[in-house]
Amino acid sequence: MTMNTPTLVPNNRLITTTAEEGRHLAIKLARLVVKATQPDEEVRKRLRDVYANDASFLIQVSHVTAIEFATIAAANDYWRNTNR
Amino acid sequence: MTMNTPTLVPNNRLITTTAEEGRHLAIKLARLVVKATQPDEEVRKRLRDVYANDASFLIQVSHVTAIEFATIAAANDYWRNTNR
Amino acid sequence: MTMNTPTLVPNNRLITTTAEEGRHLAIKLARLVVKATQPDEEVRKRLRDVYANDASFLIQVSHVTAIEFATIAAANDYWRNTNR
Amino acid sequence: MTMNTPTLVPNNRLITTTAEEGRHLAIKLARLVVKATQPDEEVRKRLRDVYANDASFLIQVSHVTAIEFATIAAANDYWRNTNR
Amino acid sequence: MTMNTPTLVPNNRLITTTAEEGRHLAIKLARLVVKATQPDEEVRKRLRDVYANDASFLIQVSHVTAIEFATIAAANDYWRNTNR
Amino acid sequence: MTMNTPTLVPNNRLITTTAEEGRHLAIKLARLVVKATQPDEEVRKRLRDVYANDASFLIQVSHVTAIEFATIAAANDYWRNTNR
Repeated sequence: MTMNTPTLVPNNRLITTTAEEGRHLAIKLARLVVKATQPDEEVRKRLRDVYANDASFLIQVSHVTAIEFATIAAANDYWRNTNR
Repeated sequence: MTMNTPTLVPNNRLITTTAEEGRHLAIKLARLVVKATQPDEEVRKRLRDVYANDASFLIQVSHVTAIEFATIAAANDYWRNTNR
Repeated sequence: MTMNTPTLVPNNRLITTTAEEGRHLAIKLARLVVKATQPDEEVRKRLRDVYANDASFLIQVSHVTAIEFATIAAANDYWRNTNR
Repeated sequence: MTMNTPTLVPNNRLITTTAEEGRHLAIKLARLVVKATQPDEEVRKRLRDVYANDASFLIQVSHVTAIEFATIAAANDYWRNTNR
Repeated sequence: MTMNTPTLVPNNRLITTTAEEGRHLAIKLARLVVKATQPDEEVRKRLRDVYANDASFLIQVSHVTAIEFATIAAANDYWRNTNR
Repeated sequence: MTMNTPTLVPNNRLITTTAEEGRHLAIKLARLVVKATQPDEEVRKRLRDVYANDASFLIQVSHVTAIEFATIAAANDYWRNTNR
């Protein structure tokens, strides 16, 4: 299973110290898949300028983030034992 | 993992006292991802005026909220032991 | 966490007596998010007249309801011990 | 919680004898939400004629069914102990 | 609960021997809902020719398959004890 | 259950050594369903050139990947005991 892709999971783990870090990771995971699918930095930058100004795309980005976060939150047992 | 983003998880935790607060948090989480993706307040305000008047966007917002809420509700063990 | 929003969770709990009530709650939860996002009654009524006649919107409404219901059903342990 | 809606959950339960029945229930649950949202039989029939001939709508219908079924299957512990 | 639909769950169970078979079942479950919604073979064939050549439809098909597979995989405890 | 499809699950298992490999598998699973639905290599290549330059498609690809990954991550107990 070798692909010419960038790293897909930073630090190779889903465990984070806090929910805030988990949220950052969720955003990062989604972006890294886009990067693997479209490796051309210039193309990605151009597309990003488009979707950051389009309500529908912004909602789609938040949608994907919500799904990635659900996995990360479960992996961290929802950070129940931290920050109380 | 440093990004110039606003806080993504208020109070840095998913645990809330009630389901009502959990629902507010779900809405908030979705909005904060949009804010991180499009930091320009003016652009966000303009897009918001658009989607608040479009049935499809409103349904998409409720869709994302439902997913965020699923995670929060599970984190709080569905608030089974409160408000009975 | 104070927002000028209507109540988002009726009775502030996800626990219902039956699956039927759980289904009603799922529909209600989705509608209350729309209400919080677009507080103007007139606008909502106009949008509703549109989507109630559009197959795609109706499917989207059923989609969101399905997600909300998944959370409610799990919260109620799927009502396994009732109505048998 | 009184709405002028039809029954939303046939027999008021998610428990079924087999996976096949669970699948029927999933389809039924999705349809009953559409019925509650658009009670006009004539309108629904017209919309149905449209979406049954549109690939995108058919995929959306299968999408919603998949979500409803996930809930029903979990409620029934995936019918692990039946039909083996 | 009698509908003039084809079988919706082959063999009436979600348990499969391997992950590969589980994946086939996921594709099959999605197709059978489409078949139940649009029983006309000719219409389905025509729609299939359309979506098999449209990137967006292909992604939607993979999306629904992913959801069905999530259910099947959980039902089979992810085939953790097989094929190691 | 015999279809003229390529392998749908590489190595016929969801268990991977690391989260990074799990992420690769998620991407792979989604692609293999597309391959099974549209076996013509030339058509797939043409569609791929399109969607790799379209923001909406890229987000959809990341969406499906997120769902497949949720299943794989759960199957691997979120790789909690590895790479710490």
